[in-house]
Amino acid sequence: MNIGFIGLGKMGANMVENMLEHGHEVVVYDKYVSPSLELKAKGAVQASGLHDLINKLPKPRKIWVMVPVGEPIKEVLNELLEILEPHDIVIDGGNSNYKLSMDWSARFKEAGIHFLDVGTSGGMSGARHGACFMIGGNENAFKSVEKVIQDIAIQDGYLYTGPSGSGHFLKMVHNGIEYGMMQAIAEGFEVVEKSSFNYDLEAVSHVWNHGSVIRCWLMELIENAFKKDPDLDGIKGIMASSGEGKWTVETALDLQVPTPVIALSLMMRYRSLETDTFTGKVVAALRNEFGGHAVEHDD
Amino acid sequence: MNIGFIGLGKMGANMVENMLEHGHEVVVYDKYVSPSLELKAKGAVQASGLHDLINKLPKPRKIWVMVPVGEPIKEVLNELLEILEPHDIVIDGGNSNYKLSMDWSARFKEAGIHFLDVGTSGGMSGARHGACFMIGGNENAFKSVEKVIQDIAIQDGYLYTGPSGSGHFLKMVHNGIEYGMMQAIAEGFEVVEKSSFNYDLEAVSHVWNHGSVIRCWLMELIENAFKKDPDLDGIKGIMASSGEGKWTVETALDLQVPTPVIALSLMMRYRSLETDTFTGKVVAALRNEFGGHAVEHDD
Amino acid sequence: MNIGFIGLGKMGANMVENMLEHGHEVVVYDKYVSPSLELKAKGAVQASGLHDLINKLPKPRKIWVMVPVGEPIKEVLNELLEILEPHDIVIDGGNSNYKLSMDWSARFKEAGIHFLDVGTSGGMSGARHGACFMIGGNENAFKSVEKVIQDIAIQDGYLYTGPSGSGHFLKMVHNGIEYGMMQAIAEGFEVVEKSSFNYDLEAVSHVWNHGSVIRCWLMELIENAFKKDPDLDGIKGIMASSGEGKWTVETALDLQVPTPVIALSLMMRYRSLETDTFTGKVVAALRNEFGGHAVEHDD
Amino acid sequence: MNIGFIGLGKMGANMVENMLEHGHEVVVYDKYVSPSLELKAKGAVQASGLHDLINKLPKPRKIWVMVPVGEPIKEVLNELLEILEPHDIVIDGGNSNYKLSMDWSARFKEAGIHFLDVGTSGGMSGARHGACFMIGGNENAFKSVEKVIQDIAIQDGYLYTGPSGSGHFLKMVHNGIEYGMMQAIAEGFEVVEKSSFNYDLEAVSHVWNHGSVIRCWLMELIENAFKKDPDLDGIKGIMASSGEGKWTVETALDLQVPTPVIALSLMMRYRSLETDTFTGKVVAALRNEFGGHAVEHDD
Repeated sequence: MNIGFIGLGKMGANMVENMLEHGHEVVVYDKYVSPSLELKAKGAVQASGLHDLINKLPKPRKIWVMVPVGEPIKEVLNELLEILEPHDIVIDGGNSNYKLSMDWSARFKEAGIHFLDVGTSGGMSGARHGACFMIGGNENAFKSVEKVIQDIAIQDGYLYTGPSGSGHFLKMVHNGIEYGMMQAIAEGFEVVEKSSFNYDLEAVSHVWNHGSVIRCWLMELIENAFKKDPDLDGIKGIMASSGEGKWTVETALDLQVPTPVIALSLMMRYRSLETDTFTGKVVAALRNEFGGHAVEHDD
Repeated sequence: MNIGFIGLGKMGANMVENMLEHGHEVVVYDKYVSPSLELKAKGAVQASGLHDLINKLPKPRKIWVMVPVGEPIKEVLNELLEILEPHDIVIDGGNSNYKLSMDWSARFKEAGIHFLDVGTSGGMSGARHGACFMIGGNENAFKSVEKVIQDIAIQDGYLYTGPSGSGHFLKMVHNGIEYGMMQAIAEGFEVVEKSSFNYDLEAVSHVWNHGSVIRCWLMELIENAFKKDPDLDGIKGIMASSGEGKWTVETALDLQVPTPVIALSLMMRYRSLETDTFTGKVVAALRNEFGGHAVEHDD
Repeated sequence: MNIGFIGLGKMGANMVENMLEHGHEVVVYDKYVSPSLELKAKGAVQASGLHDLINKLPKPRKIWVMVPVGEPIKEVLNELLEILEPHDIVIDGGNSNYKLSMDWSARFKEAGIHFLDVGTSGGMSGARHGACFMIGGNENAFKSVEKVIQDIAIQDGYLYTGPSGSGHFLKMVHNGIEYGMMQAIAEGFEVVEKSSFNYDLEAVSHVWNHGSVIRCWLMELIENAFKKDPDLDGIKGIMASSGEGKWTVETALDLQVPTPVIALSLMMRYRSLETDTFTGKVVAALRNEFGGHAVEHDD
Repeated sequence: MNIGFIGLGKMGANMVENMLEHGHEVVVYDKYVSPSLELKAKGAVQASGLHDLINKLPKPRKIWVMVPVGEPIKEVLNELLEILEPHDIVIDGGNSNYKLSMDWSARFKEAGIHFLDVGTSGGMSGARHGACFMIGGNENAFKSVEKVIQDIAIQDGYLYTGPSGSGHFLKMVHNGIEYGMMQAIAEGFEVVEKSSFNYDLEAVSHVWNHGSVIRCWLMELIENAFKKDPDLDGIKGIMASSGEGKWTVETALDLQVPTPVIALSLMMRYRSLETDTFTGKVVAALRNEFGGHAVEHDD
């Protein structure tokens, strides 16, 4: 299949390589990076810009976009909306908010263009060797690109989820669950690490990956991490977040679904970004006011 | 009334002064501090030790103990158990765990001595000018000391709560609620402080103290704190805790009562004691493993 | 002062009565209810509609709107925007979302009309006898209506908070704190109620209202409730919510402020709306799958 | 290896069968159930009681106990303590509290008997075909039973964790993580189920099990459950718990480790046991008191 691919970041470059190995002809473009020599050696055709990219593709074009959310994706989609033609298909494989994807789908539809919102999971290794995809949008459009999705997915690793937005919605919730699972695992290891027993954390994660109820890919990943840095001494506990956990909580509030675990996972991430908190100052001040409890002073 | 008073800390000294002003004759002792000149001027009689203290009191003795939990209270109660006589009354006005108080009550009872577990609330100002008491233990013993309790309590500020343990249990839950209220107030002020509006926090707490649904003594206290330090710049957000919040959560777990707010108030206190967390390290390591997200490194 | 007042619900009717007693001349209108005989006896002038209402007022008009959020407030403000004239002043005293209030302010400003966003606290009794107001918007517009606000506020119970949106923003956070305080109090009483001691809950709330650290207006209200129904046997534990707690959490997420207590207060409200949950079904199904733990079946 | 096995419940019976298939000679006993014909056919020798069981074993005896926590395990261990002899080895493979296991270990040690605390994970299928074991206690005692553990464990599925208590401690934390993971997954599915999209939950769990970041054994189990009952209509959302989640939270509090996710997972389980809550009644009563919000009444 001929496919255009925009975005050669950590996920995108691996997916392109994956496509090439499956025999697809991929025209690539990234505003900031050139394709690697390896990608070129495997057959990636470099476009000089979006115009060039669509000119290098047979009609109807199939264009996979894998760029960061926010301004980058907005800029790319706006330009594609201007230059593409009816029957072309745009695939947003990034972590876009499903509501925005529904808006984009409507705007592209007005121009006769199909827009598929595709949630992509599996990390960089998945992107390279077999990822997991959740695909929302027009079903016929999906079918016309199913082959390439199937090829770069792991066996059984893709699902057509229904109308526009449903793919990114499902990926959003997937990430919400991921936040909760990661926080649960992390809390457990902090209890283990602070206990009076003297555990080998790599060995613990190793045994938990073999036959336990909590065996999972995340546990395998943390085993890898402990192998490299047994007490994670070299890592600061700053937990960044990319938006999907927040959207999951916001969506849950809209649906009146109590999601304490996902919400707290997110809030503990925010907490980790601060070294001191105003909340803490207020409580310390209150304790000082009523009980004369000493406060520690900032220098 | 003649009363012995052990413990002249922040709460104790104020309570003794309060008692003296109400005409009670108070024999005082503290292992580490002498009574202030002011207390002596108001009539406090200083004992040189527990033996001396009980010898200075008419029988049956009434002895109020106001010392820190843990070893201090254990040491005092053990010694009193040895030297007191049947019909004497011991009042533990501190923040003891209600289960321990039930044990002490049983041990004292075997010796014919009454033990009252009294939860004391109201902070230092309450101790001085009218506190709030929750009293568990033998009802007749309570009645024989009710006058002094009534005198140092604010109007309507004491309650006989039933059998041994019920006073300290109720104070424990009171503190659990206090944790939750403080954290709720503090979270609100952090949102206010971080907002794009430019609020005067003292003015905000002042107006909330006048007619709002959330007016409360804690809001008055934070208003005082903002008056002294408008943005709490001089205070570190380290939230210590003294045990009662933890016991409330443990008790709630035993009773299978979901107490998410009290539990989270406590956990955010614990979180404030750390500058970095192992939980955070694990999550950061995981994000790095699957997504190649950069981690910050400890130096 | 001549003032128009739209909305005669639980809050509005009390506020009008309050205004009338302070000598203001109030023209009232409510699409669904007529003013009570009492209000009329005290001088309320009934308008037959919004046109009639503005015609009964001297220019520039001052119009206080106290109607439910959602469609009702939208409808009223849209109509006022059409029929009012430059220099008129609209006061939205309801629980509007501060972002919407900022939008309305901008729209009214284009028409030369002032729009004040006023958060109102204190419940029905406050509305009647002295409420608490947080006022955002143009400062001169505020000053021209300050007298009536001052009159129906409790002493010290109003604050000009700055630009448009700042009044409703502050009221929103106030309600977030309120959610947290209520949940903290409620959790505490559930622990008390489930304990093996046999407490009189009215007596407990009464003593906590006298001298304790957690004394507050909400504690007084629950004391009233226990007086009427000692074990709340007649009340179902369904906790509705009106939006401001949700907005507080959403705002906190936008500001990356961890607010576990406010968030959990809200989520436990949502939980109380359900008799069974899908979350519960999933966990029960999982336990059955791995451990053969019995599940209870729906009939 | 000759081994005695006490407890033929869901886990125990499967483990015995697993041992027998690996060529071990197993003498079994359960106070309430006889071994199945299948177990007998495979060679299980039935003892008539604990005395008979130990008499059927060569010295030093190796006895695996797999009975419920609480009175059952206490009764069995007490009797074994009386009848066993120095150098015998007792293995507690159940979900005992690690503190109790440390006490038992000390008591057995006084009698010259070894006590191993073994956390067992993997559910019934793991018990049958390869489980996961965490083993605390004397290392030589462990080595003398390592062969049978290795045989019934999955490849790489056992770990000697150190001194007495360390096995059950690690299993406790394992279960705490399990609670958090289950709740995270369950919350996510509730959001999916309540969304306006119309997902096939079996298909969702299936795709998430193929290449996604959140692929895990629990996700496979819920896929099985959805296969049998696509919307879990037949299951009530009552989430029982067996103690280890609670102990994890209690331990975390002792260690001052914030574990919001594990704690909330547990509390939502407790919440699911109630159809109405006193917390809810208090909040509903408060809303009625200040705002006149209607309450729903119990009939």
